[in-house]
Amino acid sequence: MTDTTHSNLPVVEQLIAALGADVVTVADAIGERRLADWSGVPAGKPAALVRPLDTAELSQIMAICHAAGQPVVVQGGLTGLAGGASPRDGEVVISLERMKAIEEIDPVSATMTVQAGCILQTVQEAAIEAGYYFPLDLGARGSCTIGGVLATNAGGNRVIKYGMARESVLGIEAVLGDGTIVSGLHKMLKNNSGYDLKNLLIGSEGTLGIITRAVLRMRARPMAVSTAWCGLGDFASVTTLLRRAQAELSGGVSAFEVMWPSYVNFVHANFEELRRPLAGQHAFHVLLETDGADAEAQAAQFEAFLAQMFEDGILEDATIAMSERAALDFWAVRDAPGEFPRLMPAMVAFDISFAVRDLAEAADRITAGLATRYPDALAVVYGHLGDGNIHLIVNPSDPSPGVAKEIEAFVYGVVQDLNGSVSAEHGIGVKKRDVLDCTRAQGERVAMQAIRSALDPRAILGRGRIL
Amino acid sequence: MTDTTHSNLPVVEQLIAALGADVVTVADAIGERRLADWSGVPAGKPAALVRPLDTAELSQIMAICHAAGQPVVVQGGLTGLAGGASPRDGEVVISLERMKAIEEIDPVSATMTVQAGCILQTVQEAAIEAGYYFPLDLGARGSCTIGGVLATNAGGNRVIKYGMARESVLGIEAVLGDGTIVSGLHKMLKNNSGYDLKNLLIGSEGTLGIITRAVLRMRARPMAVSTAWCGLGDFASVTTLLRRAQAELSGGVSAFEVMWPSYVNFVHANFEELRRPLAGQHAFHVLLETDGADAEAQAAQFEAFLAQMFEDGILEDATIAMSERAALDFWAVRDAPGEFPRLMPAMVAFDISFAVRDLAEAADRITAGLATRYPDALAVVYGHLGDGNIHLIVNPSDPSPGVAKEIEAFVYGVVQDLNGSVSAEHGIGVKKRDVLDCTRAQGERVAMQAIRSALDPRAILGRGRIL
Repeated sequence: MTDTTHSNLPVVEQLIAALGADVVTVADAIGERRLADWSGVPAGKPAALVRPLDTAELSQIMAICHAAGQPVVVQGGLTGLAGGASPRDGEVVISLERMKAIEEIDPVSATMTVQAGCILQTVQEAAIEAGYYFPLDLGARGSCTIGGVLATNAGGNRVIKYGMARESVLGIEAVLGDGTIVSGLHKMLKNNSGYDLKNLLIGSEGTLGIITRAVLRMRARPMAVSTAWCGLGDFASVTTLLRRAQAELSGGVSAFEVMWPSYVNFVHANFEELRRPLAGQHAFHVLLETDGADAEAQAAQFEAFLAQMFEDGILEDATIAMSERAALDFWAVRDAPGEFPRLMPAMVAFDISFAVRDLAEAADRITAGLATRYPDALAVVYGHLGDGNIHLIVNPSDPSPGVAKEIEAFVYGVVQDLNGSVSAEHGIGVKKRDVLDCTRAQGERVAMQAIRSALDPRAILGRGRIL
Repeated sequence: MTDTTHSNLPVVEQLIAALGADVVTVADAIGERRLADWSGVPAGKPAALVRPLDTAELSQIMAICHAAGQPVVVQGGLTGLAGGASPRDGEVVISLERMKAIEEIDPVSATMTVQAGCILQTVQEAAIEAGYYFPLDLGARGSCTIGGVLATNAGGNRVIKYGMARESVLGIEAVLGDGTIVSGLHKMLKNNSGYDLKNLLIGSEGTLGIITRAVLRMRARPMAVSTAWCGLGDFASVTTLLRRAQAELSGGVSAFEVMWPSYVNFVHANFEELRRPLAGQHAFHVLLETDGADAEAQAAQFEAFLAQMFEDGILEDATIAMSERAALDFWAVRDAPGEFPRLMPAMVAFDISFAVRDLAEAADRITAGLATRYPDALAVVYGHLGDGNIHLIVNPSDPSPGVAKEIEAFVYGVVQDLNGSVSAEHGIGVKKRDVLDCTRAQGERVAMQAIRSALDPRAILGRGRIL
């Protein structure tokens, strides 16, 4: 641990004395953009912003903050939706934006070693450049950092085939609350030597340690993608389609996105420029995608599969994208929610998950319950069904915070009742802290708190987040 | 927590008073088979054997042991190779053999909920019965339990495609050292709500908690398997074959097993009954397998791929199994190590992993170093190369424990030097505790110990194992 020789000074002055004014920005000089993430959670007034150049400097910063009991919050690209990176009054904001290098690409081991501040899109492009593929992808790709992606275990569009962020990481380095460097930058796919600190730190939203570097796992680049838009008559057909696609498309399914009629009707009523993939009305719409190596064989298999599903009465209708342009048109319908906030000023958004079996019941109970309670509210349902993850957006006619709170209480009650999760992929942060107990049992929360206190006994890392 | 009303009695009498003589077997009545696992680690004399019927009983047992500071050891199928389940003097042995039910199969969610005592093979067969597949497979399948498989994060033959044990689990229930039940039996593929206790408990070898139930993830059953035996001239060709197979066989690669000449020569010299897949001499032999849904298309793709590899000068020779029988003959050559102990009485076995890039150097340094130090020793090298995992078996002419220790010190020195792991899949247990620091840095060990002390403050779970 670093010797904190200036420990009689206020903590910000200690940080300046140890690291210099270039690394430490004091309160009033901190730019506005540091004060909020995409969550809309109001920010407090931080004491300082520190931007270390390397892991050793961060270790020094944490040793000083630990000794002083100074709370800190870590920021990546500030694209989080749970408010975890929004600073509170008096916190020291830590940004790893100067640690953004790709340190090594090892094509034989199919790994890329990066610093936490590296932007996701930079990683994706470097992987392609090296003849590989980094499958993790989300809308914020141009702003979000690898550190933030790992701290929140981000999901996104291709989880069904490639897993969440944690499945794309082999080793990490992190700094604990007291400055201890936990160094586990391995390239091994198998390593059964004691506790899985990597997966514990991934998804801990900056409350157990600060991820500084990671060894990422690159995958083979898919050379062919097949995309179809399907119309189905009931939920049983949707789950049958999912099961059979997984079985009969040789593990190639890379997206299985489901849209309820509420969603399709809303999009087509409000986005006239978007092509309607199917002319008819269907109880469910599915965007099905598969990727693989052999374009011709895959296209034939995909077409034969859909024909069989039609013959077996699973599909009411389907259309295959015959060009990349057509596939992008399908995805544009699925990606419309990026524009929803403009159309739904009072929107309350949910990112919830269930067992696949329970998804239909969850959606039915939630929409029926909302219709009774708020007949004027709009509620649209869609999601990554292959992952058990639905997004629900509710726009009540009354925009008051009290109504939003009531809607949340109702929806999270259904989540708890059906043993679901209040956060499938966005994280808990500050926004869902109050409803964590809908998803995590008391014994789990006791164990989580015990681990947190053990790793950060002065509770300076992300205080007030998650637990 | 349970009220421990008999806390003035010795702990074994308390257990009998609380749970009855049917659940608690006292020292001398414990059968011999409880006293050793497959590791050969000598066992001590345990104080009692307890066999709870459900999670509530186990919670009661742990509350009593916690209050008394009584060390416990958990046993599954006793097939471990690291000595973790071998009892020490005075320990209470906990067996979950009465908790072996398959509680539910949910075909829509593709999940199976099982108790920890359920045998792996029973799970595999139930998955097939339900029209699915449970890919985790290892030689001990008929004896090992799901609890043991998860506690050690077992690997096995199909890790390259389906991952280690942790990748086949969605939720778990466990009991902590003080009897707290940590209940996380979810069926969700995505659940970003706080810390990943599941992955922390998986692989903790019974030292952080006792896994009692799990929700397993079933996969689509592959309908077609293609298998080839390949001969290659150098290690660069081996890694090129791996990379191109991953890229060009559409993610279908389900095994990539590499055998060095030392291995092939030893097997053919000692197992005359085994067919030699290729007649010629090659620097490396690879067993390549792919699985998928469409037999005809896959066979054509596989054959075309191998022809291309031959044309590109990657392969010196290759042969495709034209029947299941022929494929089994290939696998028999790869599975011969099951019989090695009979032929190598002084054998010292290693289960080590590296970055794929470093495997050749690791094998070369180890075999060259051993040849210098022990010219009469036999050393054979083989492994799951796609996972970076090699097994090394050394049979010195001098069977004394001192020589075995020296060989271990040398090999683990190379592991440390190349940033590898002393345990790819078998775990640390008691056998590799002394060499944990070759793989886990000091900061990691500090964090591991802090977590262990937080979850089991009286240090009664698996004392003397891992750390």
